[in-house]
Parts: sequence; C-alpha cells; structure tokens
Amino acid sequence: MFQVGCLCACYLAKRGHEVEVYEYRDDIRKSEFVRGRTINLSLSARGIQALKAVGLGDKLVSSHGIPMKGRLIHNLDGSRHAIPYDPRHDQVCTYSVSRKYLNEFLLNATEKDFNVKLHFNHKLINANLQEGCMTFQLMVTNETVMRSADLIVGADGAFSTVRRHFMKSPMFNFSQTYIEHGYVELCMPPGEDGEFVMEPNYLHIWPRGTFMMIAMPNQDRSWTITLFMPLTQFQVLDCPTRLLKFFKQQFLDSVPLIGKRRLVTDFFATKPSTLLSIKCNPYHLSSRTVIIGDAAHAMVPFYGQGMNAGFEDCRLLDQLLHRYEDIAVVLKEFSAIRNTDAEAICDLAMYNYLEMRDLVNRRSFLLRRKVDNLLFRLLPKIWIPLYTSVAFTTVGYRQCMDNKCWQDKVIRWTLLALGVLGTALCAAGIYHWHRMTLTEKF
Amino acid sequence: MFQVGCLCACYLAKRGHEVEVYEYRDDIRKSEFVRGRTINLSLSARGIQALKAVGLGDKLVSSHGIPMKGRLIHNLDGSRHAIPYDPRHDQVCTYSVSRKYLNEFLLNATEKDFNVKLHFNHKLINANLQEGCMTFQLMVTNETVMRSADLIVGADGAFSTVRRHFMKSPMFNFSQTYIEHGYVELCMPPGEDGEFVMEPNYLHIWPRGTFMMIAMPNQDRSWTITLFMPLTQFQVLDCPTRLLKFFKQQFLDSVPLIGKRRLVTDFFATKPSTLLSIKCNPYHLSSRTVIIGDAAHAMVPFYGQGMNAGFEDCRLLDQLLHRYEDIAVVLKEFSAIRNTDAEAICDLAMYNYLEMRDLVNRRSFLLRRKVDNLLFRLLPKIWIPLYTSVAFTTVGYRQCMDNKCWQDKVIRWTLLALGVLGTALCAAGIYHWHRMTLTEKF
Repeated sequence: MFQVGCLCACYLAKRGHEVEVYEYRDDIRKSEFVRGRTINLSLSARGIQALKAVGLGDKLVSSHGIPMKGRLIHNLDGSRHAIPYDPRHDQVCTYSVSRKYLNEFLLNATEKDFNVKLHFNHKLINANLQEGCMTFQLMVTNETVMRSADLIVGADGAFSTVRRHFMKSPMFNFSQTYIEHGYVELCMPPGEDGEFVMEPNYLHIWPRGTFMMIAMPNQDRSWTITLFMPLTQFQVLDCPTRLLKFFKQQFLDSVPLIGKRRLVTDFFATKPSTLLSIKCNPYHLSSRTVIIGDAAHAMVPFYGQGMNAGFEDCRLLDQLLHRYEDIAVVLKEFSAIRNTDAEAICDLAMYNYLEMRDLVNRRSFLLRRKVDNLLFRLLPKIWIPLYTSVAFTTVGYRQCMDNKCWQDKVIRWTLLALGVLGTALCAAGIYHWHRMTLTEKF
Repeated sequence: MFQVGCLCACYLAKRGHEVEVYEYRDDIRKSEFVRGRTINLSLSARGIQALKAVGLGDKLVSSHGIPMKGRLIHNLDGSRHAIPYDPRHDQVCTYSVSRKYLNEFLLNATEKDFNVKLHFNHKLINANLQEGCMTFQLMVTNETVMRSADLIVGADGAFSTVRRHFMKSPMFNFSQTYIEHGYVELCMPPGEDGEFVMEPNYLHIWPRGTFMMIAMPNQDRSWTITLFMPLTQFQVLDCPTRLLKFFKQQFLDSVPLIGKRRLVTDFFATKPSTLLSIKCNPYHLSSRTVIIGDAAHAMVPFYGQGMNAGFEDCRLLDQLLHRYEDIAVVLKEFSAIRNTDAEAICDLAMYNYLEMRDLVNRRSFLLRRKVDNLLFRLLPKIWIPLYTSVAFTTVGYRQCMDNKCWQDKVIRWTLLALGVLGTALCAAGIYHWHRMTLTEKF
C-alpha cells in the first residue's frame, strides 16, 4: 500500500534510521490514473493524528481534504435527510481525499522532507526474511538485485508478497474472505457552473436493503459514485436498457446528474471489482520482518478505516520503538497489541455495510441514534456512540466494539427493567383489586 | 496426501481414464519410517465404504486393521472405565491402521491392480491450472519436465502447492488456523510375552481437562501414545526430571508401561508438532483442476476423520463423474456439495478435542450419553448420536451436526417443559392451599 509504506518510511527516517523504499509499480507521480482502484479515500481522526506526528497532517487536510460532516440519505421516494456525525459540532467530520493527490503528497514528503531513497519498478521475487535478505527484479532491465536490512517492513497491500513468506511458518494464522458483493465506480461531473451538483459536505448514501450506492466529493467538484451490490445482481444488468431501468427505479435522482450516456459508458467499462477481508496473526516473523497496513489487515471499505488503520499501525510501531530497545520485543508487542484492534475493525467494517445499506433507514436505528446522541451529550466521556469512537477518536478499535456491547446491554436491561416494573405495578394493582373484591365477597 | 491421491487415482483408472500420479517424495515402499508424521491412522465407515467401491476395503480391514470398539478412560486416581461406541454391538468399531502399511497397500493397488503410472521425486514447481499444464523438477537429476492433463487433481496435503495457485484467483476464500496445542508421539512397547500391555480393542484416553494423552494399538502389539497439550506447557517440561514428575502426577499407570528411559528419549527426540485446520472454497479452479483431501480441508486429528473425509471426497467425485457429462458441472457441484460437509467436519474435529480431553469425564456428558443410547435404541433411525453418525454412517457431516443441534433443542425443551409443568403443579398446590386458608379465615 503506497500510503502506509510512505508514512512508515517517514516515521523511521524521523527516528534517525537509514530507510529505503522498494516499490513494484512505477512512480505514480509520473503515471496516469490507474484503473481498478478507488479514486478517493476517507481520512479521519486516526489517520490525521498519525500524519500530524510527522508534521504532515494539517497541510494535507487544509489543502486537499473535503470535509464530510455526516451522511445524507437518498430515499427511494426521492426524499432526503441528513444524519450528521455529531449534531452539535459541524467541525466533527471525515475528509474525502483524492488517492492520486495523497500518493503524490506522501511520496514528495518521504523523498524530500525525510530524505528517503525511493526505488520504483522493483519486484520482490525472493526473500529470506529471517536473515533480512531480499531479491528484487528490476522491471525495466530484468536485472536482479539483492538487498539486506536490519528491519523489513512489508507494506505491500492485501496481496502482499512479503506476507506470502509468512504462510509456511508454524503458528501463522491467516484468512482471506471475499464477500458476495462487488462494486463499480461511476462519475458524477460538476454542474454547468463548475460547482457540486449535490450538497458537498456529506457522504451521500442511497440505502436499498440488499445493495447501496454512495457518493464522495472530489476536489474538481465531481463526485465518485460507488455502487455496491451482490455480484449475481451485477450479472443481471447486462445491457444499457436494463441498467437504465434499474437506475430509474432505484436511484432516480442520480440519473440526470450522472448523465445517461456517461452512466452506461462508465458502468460497462470495467467488470465489477471484488471485496475481501484479510486477517492474520502474528504480524512479525523473527525479529527482522513486520507487515503493516493492508498486508496485515485488509478490510471491506465500509467504515472508511482501511488507510486510517494503516496509518495508526505506523504510529504504534513508532511508539513501541520509542518504548523498547530490543527490536524483538517491539515486533512481538506490535503483533500482540495491533492484532486485537485490527481484527475488530475488520469485523466492524463488515458490520457497517449492513448499517449503511439497510439499518440506516430503519426506525429502530434512528431512535437508537437519538438515544445515543442524548446520552453522549449528557455523559460525553462515558457514552461515546460507536461511529464517533471509531471515526473521531483514537480509542482502540476493540475498545470501541466492547463499548458498543455494554451500551447495547445497558439499553436492553433498562428496557427489561422498565418492562418488569410496569408488569409488577400492573400485578400489584390487580392483586389489590382482587383482595378488595374478595373482602367484599366474604 | 499419499492415501487420498492413490485412492482417487484408482477411482479414475476404474472409470477408464489414463491416470498418472506425481509425488514429491521418494517411494515410501523403499524408504524408512519418516519422522514427524503420526504412525497410525483411524479408519471408519466412510473410509471403508470408499475403499470398498474399488474393491480394497475388506482386504485392508481384515488383514491389517485393529478394531477399537470404544474409548477406555484412564482417570487421575488410577481407575478406568470403558465407554463403548455402541453398547449393543461389539462389531461397531473404528480401525487403527499403520500409516506405513496403508501407504504400501494403496501404492501397490494403484500401480498393480489399476495400472496407474507412479512418478516419485517429482516436485511441482510451476503450473498453469487453467490450461492444465504443470512443470515438475526431478529431485534426483534437477531436470525439469512439463506435463499437461485434462484434469489435475491436487491431493498434495495441508500445505498443497496446487492450492497455492488458487490463492490469487478472485473469490477464493481461505483460512489456516493453528491451535494453541501441539503434540508429541511416544511408544509403549509390547510386554515381555510379546502381547499388548493394555486392553487392545480400545482407544485409550487420559483426559486431563486442558490436555490429554491417547493411545492407539499397532500391529506389532505396541501402542502409539500421543500427548496433546498447550505448546506453552510443553516448554515447561524442559528436563527429564520435570517430565517424569509430570508423568507420575498425570499418567502414573503409563510410566512403567512405556519405561522411564524410553519416555525421556522419545519425548526429547523431537520438538512438539503443531496442529492446524484449513478451510477453503471453492475446491475447483476453472474446469481443469480440483483439490481434495487435506489440500481442501485439513483438520485437527481429534475425530479421526481426516483420511476418511479424504476418501469420501474420492467417492463423491466418482459419483458426480458418473452423474454428469460436463466436467465443469462435476467440479462446480463437487465444490458446492463437499464444502459444506468438509467445513462441518473441520468444526466437529475442533469440538471433539474439548469432548475428549474434558467433557468425557463430566457427569452431564455421561448422563447425556446414556440418554442418547436409550433414545438410539428406541428410535434407531431418528435419534442417531453425534459420534455414531460421524464414525459409523455415511450421513453428510453437516447433517450430523444439524442432527446434534435439534437433539440438543429437544432435550432442552423437554427439560424446560418438565420444569414449567413442575412449577405449574406447585403453583396450583399453593393457590389451592391459599384459597382454603382464605376461606377458613373469613
């Protein structure tokens, strides 16, 4: 993963280490947009905090982040309603950031601000991770080069080559799970006035139960639209007629804004992409290698936490390097602490798909949200709603999940207690009446 | 996996196909016992049925299987009790078979009875599974050879090389999970009279809650003892004194039978082996490749079903080849049908460790077993206890699991109904008494 690898290089360079980055792909600053990857990323508290620690947070957010202060729901009947992340504070928001800009920004910072040497077009073809040795093939000349390092950080994404070397080491647990749903990206251009055609400071959602569409704002005033749906349902939309009929039924308001021709062209330009979740444990191999970011914990994109979790990995690793002298202890602690949280956010991301595409429009969900907001206002340190704690705090992901569990329990028991109290009062009334009647009878 | 690959070759050859077997290792018929693999295997109904279909079942069982008609529990206080698999029928049993003999038997049958060509010392180094192409390296000469086939069957065990080629194909789900426990194998020799030193026709178990020891009989009248324990606990037993103290505390009756010197030598001869469970889905790639046996579903050994499930794969594949003309349909159906059952037995195997090492000695378990046996006797077609259905029938593993679930429910509801009835009778009594008292009062 470009972003996480760069940030980690900055952290290590800042600590005074000699760092080199090896990348399989070409320098993205010189190449065009790569198809098949999402166009924008969501940056929230954890990511920003990790960037700030190396002096990159404010610059990035202020110059290139578009704030999103809540969800804006598009209902089937054409009505809309906003669900702010925090009704009291407008500044509580996540940021939509262009992937291309973010990559360029981080590559420049790594290379220029932190004097890290970047090697592009280097494909890792072999490694002895215990010894810290790697063999790369240069994609241009086909030449092979060998490199060794005291510490190898594998930040090479969901299909990590570094991680593949972990697979046969004893006690390495691993799982990759594809979900039944895939996605297609579309573009909604700016209006004729060059401005956004929808309210810009929101994540727009068209929740439709078994599928959903979302929109995130771009710097150029366009929107990146993503349609998430079961792959089988994509197969049904096999011609422009069926596609347009489907869009008119489900997302009527979006059709004129995207434009019919563009909708058809974009939709059929690529096959739907798949979505997968990767968990593994431990994240280190001997005291020479560690994997971070998507290489360690790839997740479905529904919490917008993939990159943020990766950035948080860098911060944790830095904290542990600061705390312990022995690299073996650092890596062991990193695996132990991070795995619990990373697996929690993988699960939360899976859950959030259900919330976004279905629950978000249910009365029980909206009522619970009101209760959460009220309690959050009354007990701001104790009752932090799940989304708030994940996106706007740096509380461990596992702790966020546990908090939600006890909050659910408190609500369940309160309702039960109220129910029992009501029944008891009722029973007492009947008993009293019964005694009165009996006394009258005899 | 030697056994499953051979049996599948027999099945395919019997159908009239030209079959070749490529094996990484040397011909086991020419080599000595390979350390690190368990010495004996458990053969039960599914395995026997699959062997019988190619005419190999009876010969193997009658000549080289040692029947085990139940569990024999060794308690901490030195007492013992037997738990027969089926108290009514002595012939309901599983068979302990020597791995070496089984391999030789199957290799001979494959080569001589079914005229299959066997290639040893061939390491799969590359493959294009969509095209049915494979490249092997000959381990002796280092020469490489290319082979192509209409159908590639990967029966190459838990660390399958064939399966590694599935990993990057979209929608391939995979998980490997190591448990915290490992094992060490020991040997209990025959007595001075050359006979078994314990009752031969049982699986002996020393259940100790968080760990356990088991013993399986061998043809030469010795016993293969396996100690399963958390790996951290193995680390504590780091010298002969600690080991002997531990054995005297936990498995006192076994110490003189194994012999102190042999116990110490065997225990410290190898590091504890790890145990893992592998699940994946689908089992086929395009219409050219399928994985079976441990390559598709490796499980922890506690149900003794690993090989039996692999043999059952061969039988199912054969049935599907008989049913459908189109190989694409055969493989798709194989994945769909087999995955459900294979994942069920992986989970059941994990559960059975708990039963063997802990539950087996609890009163609630023994009582439940009595209830199960009684109901099985009364309703032999309806109420089949879990162990019976897994080991002594060919009912789908998933169905076995589902049966256990509804049996649990029936028992739970019956107990609840009895409880409610009791309470109601009690309440009626109190009410009656209360009315009497009231009537007397007024």
